[in-house]
Amino acid sequence: MDEKALRALLGQVKTGKVSLDDAVGKLKDLPYAELGYATVDTHRNLRFGFPEVVLGEPKTVEQILGIVGALVERKQTVLVTRLQPDKAEALTARFPKGVYHPVARIFHLPQRKVKAGRVAVVTGGTSDIPVAEEAALTAEAMGADVRRVYDVGVAGIHRLLRRREEIQECHVAVAVAGMEGALASALGGLVGIPVVAVPTSVGYGANLGGISALLSMVNSCASNVATMNIDNGFGGGFYAALISRTKGRS
Amino acid sequence: MDEKALRALLGQVKTGKVSLDDAVGKLKDLPYAELGYATVDTHRNLRFGFPEVVLGEPKTVEQILGIVGALVERKQTVLVTRLQPDKAEALTARFPKGVYHPVARIFHLPQRKVKAGRVAVVTGGTSDIPVAEEAALTAEAMGADVRRVYDVGVAGIHRLLRRREEIQECHVAVAVAGMEGALASALGGLVGIPVVAVPTSVGYGANLGGISALLSMVNSCASNVATMNIDNGFGGGFYAALISRTKGRS
Amino acid sequence: MDEKALRALLGQVKTGKVSLDDAVGKLKDLPYAELGYATVDTHRNLRFGFPEVVLGEPKTVEQILGIVGALVERKQTVLVTRLQPDKAEALTARFPKGVYHPVARIFHLPQRKVKAGRVAVVTGGTSDIPVAEEAALTAEAMGADVRRVYDVGVAGIHRLLRRREEIQECHVAVAVAGMEGALASALGGLVGIPVVAVPTSVGYGANLGGISALLSMVNSCASNVATMNIDNGFGGGFYAALISRTKGRS
Amino acid sequence: MDEKALRALLGQVKTGKVSLDDAVGKLKDLPYAELGYATVDTHRNLRFGFPEVVLGEPKTVEQILGIVGALVERKQTVLVTRLQPDKAEALTARFPKGVYHPVARIFHLPQRKVKAGRVAVVTGGTSDIPVAEEAALTAEAMGADVRRVYDVGVAGIHRLLRRREEIQECHVAVAVAGMEGALASALGGLVGIPVVAVPTSVGYGANLGGISALLSMVNSCASNVATMNIDNGFGGGFYAALISRTKGRS
Amino acid sequence: MDEKALRALLGQVKTGKVSLDDAVGKLKDLPYAELGYATVDTHRNLRFGFPEVVLGEPKTVEQILGIVGALVERKQTVLVTRLQPDKAEALTARFPKGVYHPVARIFHLPQRKVKAGRVAVVTGGTSDIPVAEEAALTAEAMGADVRRVYDVGVAGIHRLLRRREEIQECHVAVAVAGMEGALASALGGLVGIPVVAVPTSVGYGANLGGISALLSMVNSCASNVATMNIDNGFGGGFYAALISRTKGRS
Amino acid sequence: MDEKALRALLGQVKTGKVSLDDAVGKLKDLPYAELGYATVDTHRNLRFGFPEVVLGEPKTVEQILGIVGALVERKQTVLVTRLQPDKAEALTARFPKGVYHPVARIFHLPQRKVKAGRVAVVTGGTSDIPVAEEAALTAEAMGADVRRVYDVGVAGIHRLLRRREEIQECHVAVAVAGMEGALASALGGLVGIPVVAVPTSVGYGANLGGISALLSMVNSCASNVATMNIDNGFGGGFYAALISRTKGRS
Amino acid sequence: MDEKALRALLGQVKTGKVSLDDAVGKLKDLPYAELGYATVDTHRNLRFGFPEVVLGEPKTVEQILGIVGALVERKQTVLVTRLQPDKAEALTARFPKGVYHPVARIFHLPQRKVKAGRVAVVTGGTSDIPVAEEAALTAEAMGADVRRVYDVGVAGIHRLLRRREEIQECHVAVAVAGMEGALASALGGLVGIPVVAVPTSVGYGANLGGISALLSMVNSCASNVATMNIDNGFGGGFYAALISRTKGRS
Amino acid sequence: MDEKALRALLGQVKTGKVSLDDAVGKLKDLPYAELGYATVDTHRNLRFGFPEVVLGEPKTVEQILGIVGALVERKQTVLVTRLQPDKAEALTARFPKGVYHPVARIFHLPQRKVKAGRVAVVTGGTSDIPVAEEAALTAEAMGADVRRVYDVGVAGIHRLLRRREEIQECHVAVAVAGMEGALASALGGLVGIPVVAVPTSVGYGANLGGISALLSMVNSCASNVATMNIDNGFGGGFYAALISRTKGRS
Repeated sequence: MDEKALRALLGQVKTGKVSLDDAVGKLKDLPYAELGYATVDTHRNLRFGFPEVVLGEPKTVEQILGIVGALVERKQTVLVTRLQPDKAEALTARFPKGVYHPVARIFHLPQRKVKAGRVAVVTGGTSDIPVAEEAALTAEAMGADVRRVYDVGVAGIHRLLRRREEIQECHVAVAVAGMEGALASALGGLVGIPVVAVPTSVGYGANLGGISALLSMVNSCASNVATMNIDNGFGGGFYAALISRTKGRS
Repeated sequence: MDEKALRALLGQVKTGKVSLDDAVGKLKDLPYAELGYATVDTHRNLRFGFPEVVLGEPKTVEQILGIVGALVERKQTVLVTRLQPDKAEALTARFPKGVYHPVARIFHLPQRKVKAGRVAVVTGGTSDIPVAEEAALTAEAMGADVRRVYDVGVAGIHRLLRRREEIQECHVAVAVAGMEGALASALGGLVGIPVVAVPTSVGYGANLGGISALLSMVNSCASNVATMNIDNGFGGGFYAALISRTKGRS
Repeated sequence: MDEKALRALLGQVKTGKVSLDDAVGKLKDLPYAELGYATVDTHRNLRFGFPEVVLGEPKTVEQILGIVGALVERKQTVLVTRLQPDKAEALTARFPKGVYHPVARIFHLPQRKVKAGRVAVVTGGTSDIPVAEEAALTAEAMGADVRRVYDVGVAGIHRLLRRREEIQECHVAVAVAGMEGALASALGGLVGIPVVAVPTSVGYGANLGGISALLSMVNSCASNVATMNIDNGFGGGFYAALISRTKGRS
Repeated sequence: MDEKALRALLGQVKTGKVSLDDAVGKLKDLPYAELGYATVDTHRNLRFGFPEVVLGEPKTVEQILGIVGALVERKQTVLVTRLQPDKAEALTARFPKGVYHPVARIFHLPQRKVKAGRVAVVTGGTSDIPVAEEAALTAEAMGADVRRVYDVGVAGIHRLLRRREEIQECHVAVAVAGMEGALASALGGLVGIPVVAVPTSVGYGANLGGISALLSMVNSCASNVATMNIDNGFGGGFYAALISRTKGRS
Repeated sequence: MDEKALRALLGQVKTGKVSLDDAVGKLKDLPYAELGYATVDTHRNLRFGFPEVVLGEPKTVEQILGIVGALVERKQTVLVTRLQPDKAEALTARFPKGVYHPVARIFHLPQRKVKAGRVAVVTGGTSDIPVAEEAALTAEAMGADVRRVYDVGVAGIHRLLRRREEIQECHVAVAVAGMEGALASALGGLVGIPVVAVPTSVGYGANLGGISALLSMVNSCASNVATMNIDNGFGGGFYAALISRTKGRS
Repeated sequence: MDEKALRALLGQVKTGKVSLDDAVGKLKDLPYAELGYATVDTHRNLRFGFPEVVLGEPKTVEQILGIVGALVERKQTVLVTRLQPDKAEALTARFPKGVYHPVARIFHLPQRKVKAGRVAVVTGGTSDIPVAEEAALTAEAMGADVRRVYDVGVAGIHRLLRRREEIQECHVAVAVAGMEGALASALGGLVGIPVVAVPTSVGYGANLGGISALLSMVNSCASNVATMNIDNGFGGGFYAALISRTKGRS
Repeated sequence: MDEKALRALLGQVKTGKVSLDDAVGKLKDLPYAELGYATVDTHRNLRFGFPEVVLGEPKTVEQILGIVGALVERKQTVLVTRLQPDKAEALTARFPKGVYHPVARIFHLPQRKVKAGRVAVVTGGTSDIPVAEEAALTAEAMGADVRRVYDVGVAGIHRLLRRREEIQECHVAVAVAGMEGALASALGGLVGIPVVAVPTSVGYGANLGGISALLSMVNSCASNVATMNIDNGFGGGFYAALISRTKGRS
Repeated sequence: MDEKALRALLGQVKTGKVSLDDAVGKLKDLPYAELGYATVDTHRNLRFGFPEVVLGEPKTVEQILGIVGALVERKQTVLVTRLQPDKAEALTARFPKGVYHPVARIFHLPQRKVKAGRVAVVTGGTSDIPVAEEAALTAEAMGADVRRVYDVGVAGIHRLLRRREEIQECHVAVAVAGMEGALASALGGLVGIPVVAVPTSVGYGANLGGISALLSMVNSCASNVATMNIDNGFGGGFYAALISRTKGRS
């Protein structure tokens, strides 16, 4: 609420157009649902056109059911990420409209149609696919058209070169890669769109659980590469879908 | 060149519409200017609508003059980043149309007007300003309208809250912060636009030269935050301007 | 024993008011109970008004039973932290006056009433609750009034702002957060009381098992933040309760 | 402003007791002084009873003079930390009431008397004194009585034992140590008051610029130890003074 | 395809010697087999005289069967590394000509005889043998004669000295060692051939999962030592076999 | 064999006192037993007065039985460390004269009496005992008189002070401690004998699996402290026993 | 000296064909020149066909002059690496036949012609050239034909693709790159020869002084990549030249 | 003072044999000289037969002069380590009996003859000599006979083998090495005496300022190796001399 809106509201209080109780409500009431163990941010929908996403892994079944219930009650789209199969069963039993994607470990219960732009999801290898699917399904849940371009890492760079135009036609690309994570730089050097890099923990030894790929991506010599956390497919898909909704200027 | 274009070109070779030399040229000639010590990517302009940017710090004056000369010759905008003052003198002497910004350590020589969207550049403290200015000037060089929101870190969170709407109206925000880098998460939680986080090396001790801020940003609990390298103001401004040009769909 | 007390004691030895044996005892005997595998510090109660706390996780059931027995014998309050459920069973069977809190993994057997001040325990997310409960129960065991303010992380900063006054009225706050740990700085910037930051290992990838949150908190731009070890809910609660007992001057 | 105060204000608006302009002012105006390059938090004084402290090292002389000027204008105490000697000269020339302490690298310009409790500042070695003095002078500026106990590290533990009572009589102790930082644990084990540990970068090789001491302190087996950033003498003194003002309950 | 070959091909298109379709095929068709989840690089055989090797560990049985099938169909040698025993069963059931080596966890299905030079595989201890066997079997699959020299680490340097000449007669040596990895330097100092160092994760504590051995090898004071990833026996064997095929000049 | 011995031997060859075969044998034959997978260093007994010790953890039962058999055959004392209970059963079944110590996870089969000096083994806490017992049993196997001083960490420094003289009477002390590892420095500061520090992985969070304790010990401000690998109780006991055998000069 | 040679020599001693003194000399005299501060390995020439190389940076001028003198006296080629310009002056003054290369910081004084194969030296950027020149000059000093392919990093991957055949014709390639070091993987994926990867410290922030590039290269998804130390151009050139001399089998 | 002595003293107090003042003095007076900025531990001489050593580097000239003066006054041997040349001048001017060794950066002022055993100081390269000299001079100051064996690193292992017996005859060896630090393990495997490993920061890139050598030494596969801090030549010499004084039993 900026100064102008504030002045208008106070003017209405003075002239009695707005009751004192209503004004208190407007100035005080913040849009959160209190569950005791969680404070659900139900107005996030207004900020992003997408409700709060629930990280399923560290929560108990009861907590997840409660939070999802609060969202469903408010008719909001639900996305639970990193959800273990056993918890997913309880969720689909309670909310049969929702679908669980086991590779991506995502539970999705859509409410309204939303629309976003074109997002390419690209992986270095076959082993990066679970993270990539998390990204792809998240972007699709946010309304994006997703093109999957899998197993095109730099150890055989021609596989990537062959599919460059297909990627270039998207508004944004998500580069999902483990080991040395060179895919992000190579892709960044080939296309003129923003690249969202998602390092994965695929690899062994000095990959340090994905830290090597993360460092590689953060140090990218291509300027159109920004980086998400290791294995954060959800974040990569979310950020890319957000970019693909931008109504920019050029 | 996709299959269709390739087939057309070869058809023209067969029928003589295109001479053999021309076809060889089209298929062989890649758009690079060879300087011996550097291979200037002069077609990058086509990819990004912005030419190759020169990292000034580790290059000799002679190398920089040569690369800038090659770009100017091709009538391309020039941006030299992390340029030390003494090298800047040589550059402005040779190319008087260019301007050197000492705080941001950027040399800029524009050629054509370009246009991009609205970019907010936000800093945690006063000491983050040099990196922020590198971001702001880069984004402006790419045609963006830049709003500077400086010294609004979380140690006094109301300073940031007061300016939320101003930032929200932009297409994208750049969050520049050192120490614990909490600004990125706080900003990401307040606005519904993509946030490009640039950790800085401001701080001491356990800030590990900016690694702490980088880790903080990569681990952000806000999903609309992606991260650049430490002190990479140029990258942050470039990536933000790129997003602000996106003609997405929503 | 300072010089004055020493001189007095020796004077009493000389004059025979204190027997030689008593003097030897006073000068030699340190207050420790020897169990062979453990040297229980039974006078810690005098130092802190709170007996030695037992870290349950790495000890065998026999060791824990022995140490707890030694404390109970001396009529001291018992607190066993990080106690696995199976060991807890043996403990509650032997000492039925004690209570086991499964979320916090704490066994508590109080002896005398103690009193401390008001402590706020604040968490960034729902997944931080086990560590927060360890802190809250520890502080309560030390006599503090605890206010729980859970799931108010910076990704939705208004959730925290709404409860600022409630926290400010306490003598000290414990900030429990994983991922990027920005809660500590944000809270530190909002309230004028000491904040004890407890990083948690909640998160994944570049959170490095809580190191990222720890670094974030140690580098906090707010000066009223000091940091405990990762997942050290006990330490956070203990330190906060200790502060809340301070009879300072202002 | 809580709900009750808000309701009262709006009631006064309605009845005309408070003019619309005044109400807008009260609801809108946040207490910050805008300097362009800095947003000075002049109400921090209300939060802590101590104004914003200026980190001198990374700022230019002009920025420091501007910020200090804004504080002096509002009749607030000024503390500039990590101030290089050459910048200090400019500061003392402009503000002759202020004093520069070269060992601690602190500039102090007091305004009103404030009062706090007793703080012990303890160091492991002679080389830790600059950081310790930063802590001691900060605490004194906040009104504390400071006892300096220097060069009593664990390599000669009797030096520390001899002065235990003197430290125990304080409300809080600051333990300043480099190398392996064992002083914090040893002191924590000896006294029943909160210990604020400040690791220093004193040492070489595997001390990793103070990281080893920091890790040592964070892992302390004594529960009454909380940790500040490396070489953060200011933070240690501030936090200790804050504790020494607590009017707790026991 | 270089300029000359390109010009020749286009000349043939012009004169009709090569049909338009054939030319398109030659210029367009890249040698990859698309499996949906994998893009098999079947021409790698031409680059290295050895087909793509499949990392078995992170892939599902179905993915491995599919990729191996595609290779077998094209009559190419198959090597699957880091293959778990249960997956190996499915593989040997489907492709009975292949052999599974349980210590090295390698599945091998040869097609044509290939030839390479002499490779020594040397280990520091008995516990390094699984990684060493992965290297030895890989090199043998590539046609090399392998000499195994096991358990000759520097803690008893004479064990290594005794076998120096045997190693020196090879074209290249692979040094496989964990703990402090000193074998690589010691071996490098004894023989005049290239040494390929493979650090292993054997050890505990400060070996950091093999990072200590890796650092040791990368810092080797012997100039004829280059390093592979931790536990990367396959890479060590592959690289050594590749060197042993070099037809160099001296 | 030095020059003098060599000249003597060759003289004997010349004069026929030593047969050519014997001379070849003396000059060539190195004292190793080849087992294929292991090269047992059976002359280590001569170097140290103690045979090669077998690290049991990463070896198969068959390998351990083979190596132990080779040592027993040569009538050498056997020490197998970090031996899992199931492997120990096989070992004690085959070699019933040997004894397995489950806490220390050591298998010991003595052959001849050996003698060493007095060694104190000191721990910070109860949880450090398994590593301490590994050290104590190793030292005893090498003939040392071991004094166990357990659970005397710096969080209650008086527990250690009380037993100082007992430790000081030994030739050397082993300090076993996890968490912040301050025991090593405190002990080093109290006694005038060499201290062998063994960091343990006891602790959690920022203890980094023992790295924090290791760094603490390596950075010790006491000069009479040298450090072993994390959890390396065997090494600590071996090194201490070796020192206790030194017939030095003073 | 193997058993056969040893037997022959001893036979000659017995029969008097070889005097006792000569035999002692042959068996005792190891090929080292003692300088007091250095033990020059003058027989390294026999092992590698190349004498010991002198690391100039940490040595004093006197030490370098002494070592070089010892080598020149034995008519051996001299290579001093990482030589500061001021020390180089003293060296060229004393040994005027030698040449100092300032970019590569190498002093070279050749003695006899040697021959090696073809080595490609490839860099990611212009700033990597000093390290690349160190590699190229070292390889040339060892007799190799060197092809320089500079500034062809993955941010513009076509620059590298254009020159693939040129590199493929060499026996081995050295990939020199900083920042994220993706060049090594990309090059490895394009050519069928061994690639020696040399990470450089070029970059800033999270490049960690070259560690990021090193990790990237060690984790390369291309199997024909082995890695040298950061900025170790000498090692890269030496190792590549060594490979290019291999007379292998295929 | 143990119980018996304490009882005796108190008995003498009671009977008047010892005056009350004397008893207070004996029980109270700890052997420290207070200088304000330093608490000199003058009784350390009793513990080690060697007085407190002064770390010169981080102290001011005034502080060093004060501390040395206090030691000289008490007729104790003085050793100042890591002393910069300019401070050394002031010291030798004031105390002309002292000698400054510029390579080792040690100031030494002996008082009484002391005696210790034989210590070998061994280095990997020429560049490790400054640290080695610090160790050698310290050991000599403590009365040891020192044998210097320099530049015998594992890159030419025969250089070390040749001098094995010379080292074996000592009571203890100090292994000083940078880069990969393999010397410690190689030496440990060759001799049957305790080896004190001192990693140096000699090297570059992935040597991480000596951390790589430190890790290598801590992970040594030789059990007779214990490790000191990086570049801690003083500690290595002190610890070795201490061992060489042990009157052990075997």
